Amino acid sequence: MRHTNIFTKTRKEYPKDELAKNAQILIKAGFVHKEMAGVYAYMPFGIKVLENIKKIARSEMNNVSGQEMIMSSLQKKETWELTDRWADANVDIWFKSQLKNGTEIGFGWSHEEPITEMMKSFITSYKDLPIYTYQFQTKFRNELRAKSGIMRGREFVMKDLYSYSKNEEDHKTFYNKMIDAYKSFYERVGLGKDTFVTVASGGVFTKNISHEFQTICDAGEDVVYIDRENNIAYNEEAIEDTGIDKNKLEQAKTAEVGNIFSFGSDKCEQMGLMFMDADGIKKPVTLGSYGIGITRVMGVIVEKYADEKGLIWPKNIAPYHIEIVSLFKEKDDNVYEQSEKIYNLLKDKYEILLDDRYAGAGSKMFDADLYGIPLQIIVGDKSLAKGVVEMKNRQTEEVEEVDINDVESAVFDMYAKLF
Amino acid sequence: MRHTNIFTKTRKEYPKDELAKNAQILIKAGFVHKEMAGVYAYMPFGIKVLENIKKIARSEMNNVSGQEMIMSSLQKKETWELTDRWADANVDIWFKSQLKNGTEIGFGWSHEEPITEMMKSFITSYKDLPIYTYQFQTKFRNELRAKSGIMRGREFVMKDLYSYSKNEEDHKTFYNKMIDAYKSFYERVGLGKDTFVTVASGGVFTKNISHEFQTICDAGEDVVYIDRENNIAYNEEAIEDTGIDKNKLEQAKTAEVGNIFSFGSDKCEQMGLMFMDADGIKKPVTLGSYGIGITRVMGVIVEKYADEKGLIWPKNIAPYHIEIVSLFKEKDDNVYEQSEKIYNLLKDKYEILLDDRYAGAGSKMFDADLYGIPLQIIVGDKSLAKGVVEMKNRQTEEVEEVDINDVESAVFDMYAKLF
Repeated sequence: MRHTNIFTKTRKEYPKDELAKNAQILIKAGFVHKEMAGVYAYMPFGIKVLENIKKIARSEMNNVSGQEMIMSSLQKKETWELTDRWADANVDIWFKSQLKNGTEIGFGWSHEEPITEMMKSFITSYKDLPIYTYQFQTKFRNELRAKSGIMRGREFVMKDLYSYSKNEEDHKTFYNKMIDAYKSFYERVGLGKDTFVTVASGGVFTKNISHEFQTICDAGEDVVYIDRENNIAYNEEAIEDTGIDKNKLEQAKTAEVGNIFSFGSDKCEQMGLMFMDADGIKKPVTLGSYGIGITRVMGVIVEKYADEKGLIWPKNIAPYHIEIVSLFKEKDDNVYEQSEKIYNLLKDKYEILLDDRYAGAGSKMFDADLYGIPLQIIVGDKSLAKGVVEMKNRQTEEVEEVDINDVESAVFDMYAKLF
Repeated sequence: MRHTNIFTKTRKEYPKDELAKNAQILIKAGFVHKEMAGVYAYMPFGIKVLENIKKIARSEMNNVSGQEMIMSSLQKKETWELTDRWADANVDIWFKSQLKNGTEIGFGWSHEEPITEMMKSFITSYKDLPIYTYQFQTKFRNELRAKSGIMRGREFVMKDLYSYSKNEEDHKTFYNKMIDAYKSFYERVGLGKDTFVTVASGGVFTKNISHEFQTICDAGEDVVYIDRENNIAYNEEAIEDTGIDKNKLEQAKTAEVGNIFSFGSDKCEQMGLMFMDADGIKKPVTLGSYGIGITRVMGVIVEKYADEKGLIWPKNIAPYHIEIVSLFKEKDDNVYEQSEKIYNLLKDKYEILLDDRYAGAGSKMFDADLYGIPLQIIVGDKSLAKGVVEMKNRQTEEVEEVDINDVESAVFDMYAKLF
């Protein structure tokens, strides 16, 4: 992609009305636009990152036989009254409005209830089970304060999967499969190393067990206790329940990047989602729910990796794999010509941003660092005079001079080293 | 895809609470689920159709240099007050709510205003223009009545593109390019033959010209006058303006499937989106907006093609290209084995649904007709005894017997004939 075909602009300064580092840098880099506190639009570079994260989540969910669908944002009061989650006294983050005839409606902040209600049309017998279904849905939450940028918005994108199983045993098997799917997801988006499965409630597998996925991150709001030997962590609540001595574990500040819940059969019983089992007895379905805040994951990645120069993206979610920083003066000079050559050489194998704007060398290099595309190829006349280009690994800041004839193999090697 | 891996169920009867044919059939076939009047969820088959339509729209928009981004649903009162479109007296379809601190917010029913407001961060000079940007966005419209199924919902998906040009001439060039992009879109989704560019206001190119795309359809709410010789139509309002004798044209009942507007520079002037032109003079940007209701297009396609047996999908948007209707009795019998063989033979070239459910032949054939996948391969023991399978073109209802050894070439030929 040529930069001149993208409407985007960087700013010299951070926006003054943002407290969160993620929002400050994303706005400075032109990846997001602030609509109001906690509400952001995603510009061309930003939506590419989001879509890359979604693509990885989708492949992991399909891999465990998840079926994609999409519920509505508009929600019926009746559905949520079945579980006592309509009243503002019980759930204080509803956005509510009303139809012309005065009927109260809400905007979905979660979807367990409507999906479970909907499943009454699809589940009647044990033969219909299990069902694993997921969506990418915009959620609305009327947060009192919204100061964490895209990490905790009033409007945000979530991947939520729901499992409907015929008994606790089947549920448990799937729940454990989901733990592995989540691990793989965080690995692939670039958070694997510092993300821990965290026991959130219940030390062993109980009906109401839940796990969080917590990433070590200074901007996180949580504290967990990490047992590195067993590759697991405990949150504050769980560690008190389990009686493990927290002084023997590593304490870390973390951000929650996902959570999974077992509801047992309580919620389906409450809502009347029953099935006829093989033994001829009517039983409530066993429910699990599995969330990943897609926009939140993007925010945590920004917080975790960005430096004073700007964003740094893991390669699987970067808007582009490589940026060619072309320091040409005129569009017919040697620098431009060599940049085009490299672009054409690589463009079928990598997603490439070619900075073809008329702008000063300093401002192009400033922008490239700010965008955080993990590999930069800097093409300038001084290097070309020596027969080389500069390649910069934005994740490590290492710079190498590479012979102009060896660009392809050098890119291959450097790309392999990126996380 | 194996049918047993998809949670979906057909119904014997149409739902009783739907007046619109599209919603009746889509619900009967399990493609959509009704949340409330005018609000639908899209089940696994339904979302596949939607995503196919979006994919075609995306490719057409990218093809005219459109850049994808995504705005927010939550909307600020201040932005809409600039054009007097906040007050319920002026726009009577807002869903509104409020933040915890009492600030009024709205849910986006359109996005011209917030995108134009946002563009103030990206447009200052003529060098920044033109910009063409689009999104797929869920829109919320508080319709008084919602009786048209997914053709006119309270919550629906729209593709909306906005063009920002430096003058009327550039705008006009792009506007005409968009007419061609839209024609190509309707062609590709299967509505080309009966969709007409319709002059909606202004007979020649004026600042406030607008066009609709109207598809001949019994369920349509509009009437247009078609000039087949010139491949154009006029709506009621335009024909009065132009003075053309409507008795000389063909009158048809139609459904609007898209519309495009020229705003001239009025809206940008109103909102303060100005740029410094090459001549050093500050000027307001020229705006165009271009909408396609994605869910509406899906509804119109259902209305137009479905028959008494069920849905009929054009091949480019069908959830699957081919359904193998496998009338096996046991999963180790010859019918099942042959079905698997055909599935494996074709599955890398086509998207295939294999009906691997234990169910009666009648109910499988009933469901296949209801799903409307355009090509059916019916594998049963009577045909197999003759060394053939039946192939059915669901669009024409033609059935052919095909030698079991000629399946691949027969599929190729029949597939080519589908619209």
